[in-house]
Amino acid sequence: MHIVITGGAGFLGSRLAKNLLQRGELTGSNGVPQAITRITLLDVVPARHADDRRVRVVTGDIVDPQTIATAIEADTQSIFHLAAVVSGQAEADFDLGMKVNFDATRLILERARSLGSRPRLVFTSSVAVFGGSLPDRVLDSTAPTPQSSYGAQKVMGELLVTDYSRKGFIDGRALRMPTIAVRPGVPNKAASSFASGIIREPLNGQESICPLGPGTRMWLMSPRKAIDNLIRGHEVDAERFGPTRALNLPGLSVTVRDMVAALESVAGKRPVDFIRWQEDEAIKCIVNSWPGDFDTRRATELGFTADTNFASVVRAHIDDESQQSSPEHWPIRPSVL
Amino acid sequence: MHIVITGGAGFLGSRLAKNLLQRGELTGSNGVPQAITRITLLDVVPARHADDRRVRVVTGDIVDPQTIATAIEADTQSIFHLAAVVSGQAEADFDLGMKVNFDATRLILERARSLGSRPRLVFTSSVAVFGGSLPDRVLDSTAPTPQSSYGAQKVMGELLVTDYSRKGFIDGRALRMPTIAVRPGVPNKAASSFASGIIREPLNGQESICPLGPGTRMWLMSPRKAIDNLIRGHEVDAERFGPTRALNLPGLSVTVRDMVAALESVAGKRPVDFIRWQEDEAIKCIVNSWPGDFDTRRATELGFTADTNFASVVRAHIDDESQQSSPEHWPIRPSVL
Repeated sequence: MHIVITGGAGFLGSRLAKNLLQRGELTGSNGVPQAITRITLLDVVPARHADDRRVRVVTGDIVDPQTIATAIEADTQSIFHLAAVVSGQAEADFDLGMKVNFDATRLILERARSLGSRPRLVFTSSVAVFGGSLPDRVLDSTAPTPQSSYGAQKVMGELLVTDYSRKGFIDGRALRMPTIAVRPGVPNKAASSFASGIIREPLNGQESICPLGPGTRMWLMSPRKAIDNLIRGHEVDAERFGPTRALNLPGLSVTVRDMVAALESVAGKRPVDFIRWQEDEAIKCIVNSWPGDFDTRRATELGFTADTNFASVVRAHIDDESQQSSPEHWPIRPSVL
Repeated sequence: MHIVITGGAGFLGSRLAKNLLQRGELTGSNGVPQAITRITLLDVVPARHADDRRVRVVTGDIVDPQTIATAIEADTQSIFHLAAVVSGQAEADFDLGMKVNFDATRLILERARSLGSRPRLVFTSSVAVFGGSLPDRVLDSTAPTPQSSYGAQKVMGELLVTDYSRKGFIDGRALRMPTIAVRPGVPNKAASSFASGIIREPLNGQESICPLGPGTRMWLMSPRKAIDNLIRGHEVDAERFGPTRALNLPGLSVTVRDMVAALESVAGKRPVDFIRWQEDEAIKCIVNSWPGDFDTRRATELGFTADTNFASVVRAHIDDESQQSSPEHWPIRPSVL
């Protein structure tokens, strides 16, 4: 089984690759686990990866059909399409967002279609497809009315994934991911970047700005759970999706206040002092348009799962970071913990 | 005021032009009626039109940016974007549907954006955006889950119209039109073509095949009402739309049986005998995925209206046809009436 991961140099892409390599197999369209013979990591920057002869790296711009054709080959049975321009950037640069989030998705779907083998494709959509006047809990039947270009581009991608699947061109799944936190690394241009920053930076003894009030409710998923659910998204039988391939994933509904309390419960009072509360209207406008709670009955029936509480998410982050780092790069300063 | 109508040679486009020329004015972004100085009719075939110096005809393919640039000029304040490949054709030829229904819409939006004057744009979407598991009455909040490529392409167009409006590139409105019946002329490749055919052909003493059972429920709008609502769609204040520019229009919920009964009540028993009941699985599959009833509270509040009953729609069709035709082309054979 040859799997292509777009955004393969990114945080989720590289974790997904690592996880798949460890598993060694993945269930595809024939319903039984198949040995993974190859994983192609496609990204605009070279993907770093484990020394594993199953891994191939393709470096190039995802908006270029030739790059896509190099990555997705005749034997490609599975595609995880994770590459995207994040919400804040897609809002600031409309044309870039359209090109990367929409046009590249279409190119990938066209390439997959051209294989004639109906490859399975997992597309990461987002909670950002929702916005405007929403019920307190978003239902599986709630209409997506995005209030950001990123959200609009993701819904358009979902529609293509569903229609390409209905037409039998591919076997696609569009997973509406909650905000992923705690992400490792550095802040990015996602409007939701703070949701990781206010945990990650304080744990490193660094200041982090929280651009939203403590009462802001977020719909979250840990990186570990995100990987589990991406794989689940690949393995669900096609016929179980029904009339749409778009799916609201389970998540954890917490306020920013809950997140900070969880940080304190895990790491003590000192990290919390590194959070600086400074509201940002542009970020507030995007994040407040996203729903903070869902009833994800359909995804639960399909075997997707959520984190149990945010304290365990913080602990998992600390655990992951300590595994990733050599002692001299240990990210959590003893002075803070 | 310079108005561009795409699909200007089509049935709705030409009627809209005629109506606008008669009115002589249209309310735009400044909230007051403005004199119509020019109407450009853009279509792939030359638009026939009244001898009126305000009318300009541009003939060319709507997927060609140069054609669009010729039609939409610096002084264009209003665009009615009606051109589309119909549902049955978009289903049979996926790539053609994407090109005309989606790519051309995007080109038009880009051209409108490039003017820098935020022109007002009315985009005709469709009841076909709905499908799958639907409530008995579709609400304003019901998620569109199209079960046809035409429907998917229309939702994608709506999302662009809404996002371009939110970004301030244009001032757009996407009206989800019910099935328009009774259309004049000849059958087309729309899956809903029969809804006009089973009235129009029998009135002309011609056989018409009904591909669906008499219990099929349809959501209908007469051509006259469609023109009224397209103009209303242009004249509504932008701020009244809220978080989405897509809008379910009011319509008439009738079964095919009701339609035939209305035909009989208006024109007697003889026309009904010209209807041949012969189910067509492909057409059934598309049409049955569309909802037959809506609660269109939002549109009603915004001043859109529906026909009162189908018998009056049949009468209006007969009336329109008699006005359009010279005596020797009188379409309703006395033998039938």
